[in-house]
Amino acid sequence: MATSKTIRKLEVVSPVPADIDIANSISPLHISEIAEELGLSPDHYDLYGKHKAKVLLSVLDQLEGSPDGYYVVVGGITPTPLGEGKSTTTVGLCQALGAFLDKKVVTCLRQPSQGPTFGIKGGAAGGGYSQVIPMDEFNLHLTGDIHAITAANNLLAAAIDTRIFHEASQSDKALFNRLCPANKEGKRSFADVMFRRLKKLGISKTNPDELTPEEIKKFARLDIDPDSITWRRVMDVNDRFLRKITVGQGPDEKGMTRETGFDISVASEIMAVLALTTSLADMRERLGRMVIGNSKAGEPITADDLGIGGALTVLMKDAINPTLMQTLEGTPVLVHAGPFANIAHGNSSIVADKIALKLVGKGGFVVTEAGFGADIGTEKFMNIKCRYSGLVPQCAIVVATIRALKMHGGGPEVVAGKPLDHAYLSENVSLVEAGCVNLAKHISNTRAYGVNVVVAINKFASDSEAEMNAVRNAALAAGAFDAVVCTHHAHGGKGAVDLGIAVQRACENQTQPLKFLYPLDISIKGKIEAIAKSYGASGVEYSEQAEKQIEMYTNQGFSNLPICMAKTQYSFSHVPSQKGAPDGFVLPIRDVRASIGAGFIYPLVGTMSTMPGLPTRPCFFEIDIDVATGKVLGLS
Amino acid sequence: MATSKTIRKLEVVSPVPADIDIANSISPLHISEIAEELGLSPDHYDLYGKHKAKVLLSVLDQLEGSPDGYYVVVGGITPTPLGEGKSTTTVGLCQALGAFLDKKVVTCLRQPSQGPTFGIKGGAAGGGYSQVIPMDEFNLHLTGDIHAITAANNLLAAAIDTRIFHEASQSDKALFNRLCPANKEGKRSFADVMFRRLKKLGISKTNPDELTPEEIKKFARLDIDPDSITWRRVMDVNDRFLRKITVGQGPDEKGMTRETGFDISVASEIMAVLALTTSLADMRERLGRMVIGNSKAGEPITADDLGIGGALTVLMKDAINPTLMQTLEGTPVLVHAGPFANIAHGNSSIVADKIALKLVGKGGFVVTEAGFGADIGTEKFMNIKCRYSGLVPQCAIVVATIRALKMHGGGPEVVAGKPLDHAYLSENVSLVEAGCVNLAKHISNTRAYGVNVVVAINKFASDSEAEMNAVRNAALAAGAFDAVVCTHHAHGGKGAVDLGIAVQRACENQTQPLKFLYPLDISIKGKIEAIAKSYGASGVEYSEQAEKQIEMYTNQGFSNLPICMAKTQYSFSHVPSQKGAPDGFVLPIRDVRASIGAGFIYPLVGTMSTMPGLPTRPCFFEIDIDVATGKVLGLS
Repeated sequence: MATSKTIRKLEVVSPVPADIDIANSISPLHISEIAEELGLSPDHYDLYGKHKAKVLLSVLDQLEGSPDGYYVVVGGITPTPLGEGKSTTTVGLCQALGAFLDKKVVTCLRQPSQGPTFGIKGGAAGGGYSQVIPMDEFNLHLTGDIHAITAANNLLAAAIDTRIFHEASQSDKALFNRLCPANKEGKRSFADVMFRRLKKLGISKTNPDELTPEEIKKFARLDIDPDSITWRRVMDVNDRFLRKITVGQGPDEKGMTRETGFDISVASEIMAVLALTTSLADMRERLGRMVIGNSKAGEPITADDLGIGGALTVLMKDAINPTLMQTLEGTPVLVHAGPFANIAHGNSSIVADKIALKLVGKGGFVVTEAGFGADIGTEKFMNIKCRYSGLVPQCAIVVATIRALKMHGGGPEVVAGKPLDHAYLSENVSLVEAGCVNLAKHISNTRAYGVNVVVAINKFASDSEAEMNAVRNAALAAGAFDAVVCTHHAHGGKGAVDLGIAVQRACENQTQPLKFLYPLDISIKGKIEAIAKSYGASGVEYSEQAEKQIEMYTNQGFSNLPICMAKTQYSFSHVPSQKGAPDGFVLPIRDVRASIGAGFIYPLVGTMSTMPGLPTRPCFFEIDIDVATGKVLGLS
Repeated sequence: MATSKTIRKLEVVSPVPADIDIANSISPLHISEIAEELGLSPDHYDLYGKHKAKVLLSVLDQLEGSPDGYYVVVGGITPTPLGEGKSTTTVGLCQALGAFLDKKVVTCLRQPSQGPTFGIKGGAAGGGYSQVIPMDEFNLHLTGDIHAITAANNLLAAAIDTRIFHEASQSDKALFNRLCPANKEGKRSFADVMFRRLKKLGISKTNPDELTPEEIKKFARLDIDPDSITWRRVMDVNDRFLRKITVGQGPDEKGMTRETGFDISVASEIMAVLALTTSLADMRERLGRMVIGNSKAGEPITADDLGIGGALTVLMKDAINPTLMQTLEGTPVLVHAGPFANIAHGNSSIVADKIALKLVGKGGFVVTEAGFGADIGTEKFMNIKCRYSGLVPQCAIVVATIRALKMHGGGPEVVAGKPLDHAYLSENVSLVEAGCVNLAKHISNTRAYGVNVVVAINKFASDSEAEMNAVRNAALAAGAFDAVVCTHHAHGGKGAVDLGIAVQRACENQTQPLKFLYPLDISIKGKIEAIAKSYGASGVEYSEQAEKQIEMYTNQGFSNLPICMAKTQYSFSHVPSQKGAPDGFVLPIRDVRASIGAGFIYPLVGTMSTMPGLPTRPCFFEIDIDVATGKVLGLS
């Protein structure tokens, strides 16, 4: 039995009650107890209420040089509407490692967007007896990181439109005089941030009065091309009517209207920066070099050109600290960052993983989830996240369910709201076997990074022994280190003990170095093609727009960035209905965009929605508060 | 000397350093020390880092029946660009009461909007040696209340447009079936929130299947008139290009475009609700009854009609708890709510004042600030805030400066960035005396509420004895209880000891009941006219639009609400340039709007900006972070 003082024994009930009822049936420990058990001194965290704490980055300085624990990433087969339970498996595995296998363990999760919580999806804290609690605090506000991103993103957006507006109505000299106003003694000076632009322009003068008229013009006039602006506003709400809007229609804005739109906040590049940054100093640089569009001459314009990189960092200074929470069984969780998997890399933060690896230390485990199927999530985890962090995983999990594999094997379509077809509820080994081509491809792709792959078969009550054996055999045949059935949804950590043991063995037996899918110093197209090949594509087709953008980014000097593919998660290919493991298709690249501050180029394979909508009857109808107890009702 | 353990002795320097330098020179105490000194048990507050804590409303239950302290409101003369130092005086007075007069004291302040912090105004934590610290935490994010308001406001906005969209494309039956979907057993049920709409419609059935087609139509179809929608989206950023926008231009929104706009978040009705609510249950009701527009038949449509009142309350459940901070001298501060004084009542929250009055207890002091001049801030404090809270102030302060009085006396215009005219920097008693008509009118208006009025003369180095005597004489002649010179900006609490003594005497000698300016049960026009008369107006003139709105609100049953005048703060009249105490003018009412959930009707006297802009060189140019220490730089 575990020696950790925070471990709680779960009393499980069958059938499994609703998530919220399980979550509410457990009193979470004061988070300072979880922190203490992790070896965190009160200097290294800030409480946010009784059940959340922000762990300060300063802990990394203190633990520098101490050994890291094992690093485990959880991916999945290609997702289906049936749900594979990746988050639940991530949490359940950690409950097993911490509460039953006596390991030091930290779960690293993404912070969910608040939009879907009130829309159609509900929360994202795991499920059944494998959850992060308190569930309402996990799903709402948390410690304000997404709100900070919204504020920073929109301050930059306001700065862009206002700068264009002011440049349009002022002479070079007036503009310059307003940017560098004289103080009471009549002396002008540059703000610190302005030296970044001066340096970029090759102007080494430090006294504003010494600038030539030509230099004044270059410095003061960003000359932003309104049509080139890629920076959009954001909101953490599912507001489809903001997808495309016209701004600047007020009389005071003098007809300077512009078409633009809002994305959901987690799609902000600032979220991707938060997820990929490694320190406060690094975040300051990344935020400053974010490109918002081009000048009319085609030069990229950055946040620091607008003088705002420092202010954005100040808005994000607390958000850089991960939030400590706990599982139902009292193991620690770090929640941090949640970049939109559609257009960004869909992985939680590097700093949380780094802190966690030091806190668990040698022989401990850090388990982190990668969004979407392993073709997208694990690929980006390896080629983007690990590339920037320098961290090396020992084990990658691929989560699968019998139901989803049946669908990949050609099972009938699943329609939300309609009863499940018989095929999914009774034994059908051949359908499962047929679907294992999808699993096998994820296994071999993942193995190629040099990690040991463990398949977690997330068992449902209706799954048969023969079906599970079929998956196990297929997984081992495809090169998996192990394949294990788990029942953590119904039993908590106890249901994932075998998985925990397999993961431990996989980690202890990992010997290879991390092998990336592509080097950084090849062309943008070369990198895109390497990824496309990993999907099973026979080639890549570029639209005219994509060709143009690739040329532009290459000319601007950004071709050495990793690639973050924006592709549907519902198929290895670009066609969501192609289940299993399609091959021989030509992957179309519709457009290519870039998040220069975050540090990746993202080709668009088809249209990606960056702002969800609300259904006719959103989740919010059920959500209310018990005014007597303050308890949240109806969250799912 | 004070017996409080948290009191810190200030070492003041002359000349007074920059605000940020003073703030950074003091290490704040851990906020748990401040909380303990106030008698708060750890059960009654949640830490948010080391220097902020949310005080839980549950403390009110525990302290029910214990006596309140004295209640003091700080207003000012009519503001000028020179600044009167109202916040600074509020903080300085409390530092005097707590650190030098050995009183229990709590300062109750508004949370500043983040927009101006990065725009033109800078922060709002007081100034000189009278400040709330840490200054950066006060001005940025705080404990997330404004972010919660933004989220709730915009969720409601998204729900409105999406509901119109879904109603437009579905039959009554389809709409109803989606709103009340059948469960797996084929049974329909109403969500709890739907019973509010059913009740409003006079439908007492509880089984959805029993509704007649006519009832289904009435229930499911809100039939919102898009032109009647008054609910706008909000953002806590100075983004002028969002003042007027067109939404819904995406192809999926099928041409359902609509002109609307964004206000700054503090202008949201939800902020006004937060400021005026008295409990969680009361907030749930207020949020649910907010009116977002009318049906095409002219019926008001509420948040609860949209099924969203509960979800909004859940988003606001932590925001209802005030945030505890501290002054430079270690006295406690509650920061809570900051409704836009332009279109709302500009006062901090009722719940913070209620908690503070119990915490200081008999003989203690709660000092709260009312936004703008006393004609607006103190008037709304009395007629709206105290009316809803049931609390009774004993003393009202009117803050004045010699410079501002000179301006009211006819001194030359002041232009930002240009040197101050000689008149403001050298003795000119007659100009001061002439300006005292403004002070005198604020004093007599404030006295009419039955409180004792103390004038605080906020002294600048250039002010002369003779000038200050002139103010003192004029104040006493106008009926002030006392008039006291203070130097808290230069000396901290020590500089406001005389003011503290005067306030104590004023409170101890207050004998009259609170007299409102108007009763609630007269007509909307009757109430508007009572307030206009208090300004010095000889009459009121209504636009056609205003007449129409007054008739509509009266017909809808809202005429018994208090009135929240949206008038310029720069004059008693509607003309900002009319200094002193103008009279005989006719006050024009351009339009009349309502915040039904917050609980007031607001007539618009002229155009009120609800979204500030950024200047050519916003404050954000100076703001950065020291990446080595994490310290915020350049905040002012």
